[in-house]
Amino acid sequence: MGDVDPQSTALKLVVVGGVAGGMSFAARARRLSETANITVFEKGPFVGYANCGIPYALGGIIQSDEALILQTPESLNARYNVNIRHNTEVVGINREKKIVDFQTRDHPVRSMAYDKLILAQGAEPFRPPMKGADAPNVFTLQTIPEMTAVKQYMLSHGSKSVAIIGGGFIGLEAAESLHALGMQVSIVEYMPHVFPPVDQDVAEPLHAEMRRNNVSVHLNARIQEIVSSEENGATSHILLESGEKISGDVILLVVGVRPRVKLAEQVGLETNRFGIVTNPQMQTSDPDIYAVGDMACTTNIITHNQQNLALAGPANRQGRLVADHIFGRDVAYRGNVGTSVCKVFGINVGLVGPSLTNLKAQGIQAEYVTVHPPNHAGYYPGATPLSLKLAFSPTDGKILGAQIIGKEGVDKRIDVLATCITAGMTVYDLEHLELAYAPPFGSAKDPVNMAGFVAANVLRKDTEIVHAENLTADALSEYQVIDVRSPSEYVKGHMKDAKLLPLNELRKYFGEIDKSKKVLVYCQVGYRGYLGYRILKQAGYDVVNLDGGFKAVSQGAFNALIA
Amino acid sequence: MGDVDPQSTALKLVVVGGVAGGMSFAARARRLSETANITVFEKGPFVGYANCGIPYALGGIIQSDEALILQTPESLNARYNVNIRHNTEVVGINREKKIVDFQTRDHPVRSMAYDKLILAQGAEPFRPPMKGADAPNVFTLQTIPEMTAVKQYMLSHGSKSVAIIGGGFIGLEAAESLHALGMQVSIVEYMPHVFPPVDQDVAEPLHAEMRRNNVSVHLNARIQEIVSSEENGATSHILLESGEKISGDVILLVVGVRPRVKLAEQVGLETNRFGIVTNPQMQTSDPDIYAVGDMACTTNIITHNQQNLALAGPANRQGRLVADHIFGRDVAYRGNVGTSVCKVFGINVGLVGPSLTNLKAQGIQAEYVTVHPPNHAGYYPGATPLSLKLAFSPTDGKILGAQIIGKEGVDKRIDVLATCITAGMTVYDLEHLELAYAPPFGSAKDPVNMAGFVAANVLRKDTEIVHAENLTADALSEYQVIDVRSPSEYVKGHMKDAKLLPLNELRKYFGEIDKSKKVLVYCQVGYRGYLGYRILKQAGYDVVNLDGGFKAVSQGAFNALIA
Repeated sequence: MGDVDPQSTALKLVVVGGVAGGMSFAARARRLSETANITVFEKGPFVGYANCGIPYALGGIIQSDEALILQTPESLNARYNVNIRHNTEVVGINREKKIVDFQTRDHPVRSMAYDKLILAQGAEPFRPPMKGADAPNVFTLQTIPEMTAVKQYMLSHGSKSVAIIGGGFIGLEAAESLHALGMQVSIVEYMPHVFPPVDQDVAEPLHAEMRRNNVSVHLNARIQEIVSSEENGATSHILLESGEKISGDVILLVVGVRPRVKLAEQVGLETNRFGIVTNPQMQTSDPDIYAVGDMACTTNIITHNQQNLALAGPANRQGRLVADHIFGRDVAYRGNVGTSVCKVFGINVGLVGPSLTNLKAQGIQAEYVTVHPPNHAGYYPGATPLSLKLAFSPTDGKILGAQIIGKEGVDKRIDVLATCITAGMTVYDLEHLELAYAPPFGSAKDPVNMAGFVAANVLRKDTEIVHAENLTADALSEYQVIDVRSPSEYVKGHMKDAKLLPLNELRKYFGEIDKSKKVLVYCQVGYRGYLGYRILKQAGYDVVNLDGGFKAVSQGAFNALIA
Repeated sequence: MGDVDPQSTALKLVVVGGVAGGMSFAARARRLSETANITVFEKGPFVGYANCGIPYALGGIIQSDEALILQTPESLNARYNVNIRHNTEVVGINREKKIVDFQTRDHPVRSMAYDKLILAQGAEPFRPPMKGADAPNVFTLQTIPEMTAVKQYMLSHGSKSVAIIGGGFIGLEAAESLHALGMQVSIVEYMPHVFPPVDQDVAEPLHAEMRRNNVSVHLNARIQEIVSSEENGATSHILLESGEKISGDVILLVVGVRPRVKLAEQVGLETNRFGIVTNPQMQTSDPDIYAVGDMACTTNIITHNQQNLALAGPANRQGRLVADHIFGRDVAYRGNVGTSVCKVFGINVGLVGPSLTNLKAQGIQAEYVTVHPPNHAGYYPGATPLSLKLAFSPTDGKILGAQIIGKEGVDKRIDVLATCITAGMTVYDLEHLELAYAPPFGSAKDPVNMAGFVAANVLRKDTEIVHAENLTADALSEYQVIDVRSPSEYVKGHMKDAKLLPLNELRKYFGEIDKSKKVLVYCQVGYRGYLGYRILKQAGYDVVNLDGGFKAVSQGAFNALIA
């Protein structure tokens, strides 16, 4: 670990990359040492800017680009006495001599010595090999200059439409932002759903929300080429393998990022597919070189697997931690839980931990429950439903992840569950959580409590559930299906061959249920189904409740289950 | 502990009180046992209703009273097969014979046997001895009939004004609700601030917000009498000892509640000033009698002291837990952290754990920090500041409580911190929390992280702070006061005798600071003050930073500190 006396020496600290991780490092290092010699190299013209705001500034939701530029080289220097070298690229590292080589447009390569080198180069937009992707109306969108280029192009060409390739954070935020500008927006996504970190069923409502806002949504899209007609200055389209054409005067290529590891690899630092390998002090394989932020490979607390997490929060904390370490503090990065949230028009979606899909892909055993409680007391005006999918260990109940979608209150429950996961809590602990309740904010049993109750019921075998995704036609045929909702709900839509036996009369109609055949009971969201389960189970039936209720099978994927 | 086989016997379960705790018990008990004989006595006409919505229904924010009546005796009986005896009061308990005596208006006293008795009688509105409090226009506001009585009185008398005695949850919510109805509203509070669970400085903005909404706010008010002039049918006023008269056609007396322990005391169950004494299984001194909800004394997890917590969430969970215990499960109530939130017009205020005032009153050693971060990224439209006051142990950093006030995002941070306290986390853990960030929701360093950073800085001695409340004129005179804000901030108001040395030029002006005298540095909210502290400390000054910055001393209480 580091063992430098903050005041004894003019320690030479060199930072490559002047945004989240790099600037957090520099500021913290200066707070810890007035005498250190701190230099930040940034290849772009801006340092310490708010890159998370770029999609919003693109369409004017954030009205002024200047709002993103929180600091200038001059203000940073004045405040932190940091030597900011913007428009300057670090092109080489001599690890033996502890020297970096850097270059500006107008100067030949020069060198600077370091005692400790901090790599905070971030990640670069992934550019898949795609015919036509080099056309002048195809843009990536990571930096302020890139955003400015898109804006200038749109302005000078009078662009009216945009096709966004990629339905991740940036694509979704840009879609909303450009829609606000009055543009015709299309989203082209390779996967069966946008917002890939979550499961299909969780993401599903985003598609409807975007279409409701006149965004043209193309899923499972295989792009053949981008066809631009530069002569007339504007129109072009994306040609799919299906033959479909998606027009866009401007095309945004926002299909994710890759850690910017070229420089590190050139000088033999250890890397893997998740970025530069780091220890818990964020040191690379060379202990005098640290890596932080989007370029660093870190460990997921839940899966204990390595991952690349391109998020601003962890980058900031890692930068701060490296300064602490260099100045002799006993610190360790604890790993990530992977907390994120995204606003898509009127809907918010968030998650912490891996989705069920990702847990499965990593071979981690997980059970889950889905609840659909209102965001606050249903009797207080403006209540809207949340869908909360909670993943947990089937052996000890440890919480493994949560995905939530809804109009309000999503971020709150994600943050609570991120805190629970960080604390190593189980679903049983969720039953006890005492969360703030007044009618405008929550319910006496908060959605987080509800998810805990349901999950704990499953683990304590107070209920047995079946998931819609496991209900093949074959699986369904084993059951007699009982709908315990009201007649008015039933007539609006129900499961195939479902018999209507409203919950409040269920005890009177045992005669109508065959005791020799398994029973599948369901209601709208799962709660009355659970009550039905308890009644039937105690009456001697072999019964399961449909997790998430009819709402869970009301999505396109489960059409075959619906009458 | 309980050891009853759910199916083996028609266990006689008798519940006294049919709202939160009582109905949660009954529902859970039925889920666990189809054969139990469950009776719920409720002295009022309604069961299972949403009493937390009453202040909002009073003024029509919740438009229909029916919205509060979530269940009827009939619907509850149909669903849960529970014998609901509403309009029926339990007037006696024979513990030896295990019998309760109950009474309705039209019947003499009858009896019913129980195996287990659950007391869920709640709390009753406190009626301080006050001349005139028995006038027909003076109302308490706890039940639906009480609310109906107020409404009917207002309607039949054409009431135009209301004076609310008591500035707690109900008083504040009723003020907003009746203001929405167009009434002239006055609040009369005995204490120096409304919302007594929080500290003075935290509550202070509520007064301004209410006055901004034309609510007349009277603090430190000593009531001499309520003067009603029933002859003319409407007008009356509250006469203060000061001679001031506060008029109100209607007067609400909402000064808190007292656990309803009369019946329990009559039959010799152990009680104290916090209610009926219970063990972690919510059993009273008679193991066959349980007590839950507002009438029960429970333990605070943070202080380990006993308390009375009249909140719906704990009541619900306690009811559920008692059913689990009766049916043989190994359960224990873990105690309360005391999480609550209140909406006051456009401002939300919340807390978890005791306030600093209450920690001090209980003799618990606590340090605290105050931060004022925006609720989400400042560059995204609509950001508003939060004030977050975090209390923690000065020895090990354990979080002891948090109070937050602001326009948005209060409940989210309270819930996160409630979860942290439940998990036994320290302020160091807050530094690592990975909370959901996108510009509309938070910041890369969330307010919770920020509070953790500042508190950890204090404990690690990276900063030394002084609190406004400790800055007497004498204490202040020991310091040379340095304002590190900008000149434009300085001219709008600054501390007495403060010298302006903007942060970004501070290093140039060491010559103007006397090294032989202690330095008090401050900025607007504390962050630049901290940076100034680091610079000056490393330059050899004996320096402290003002916690919460100029904002902390801008409140009325600290006028003497301001130039």
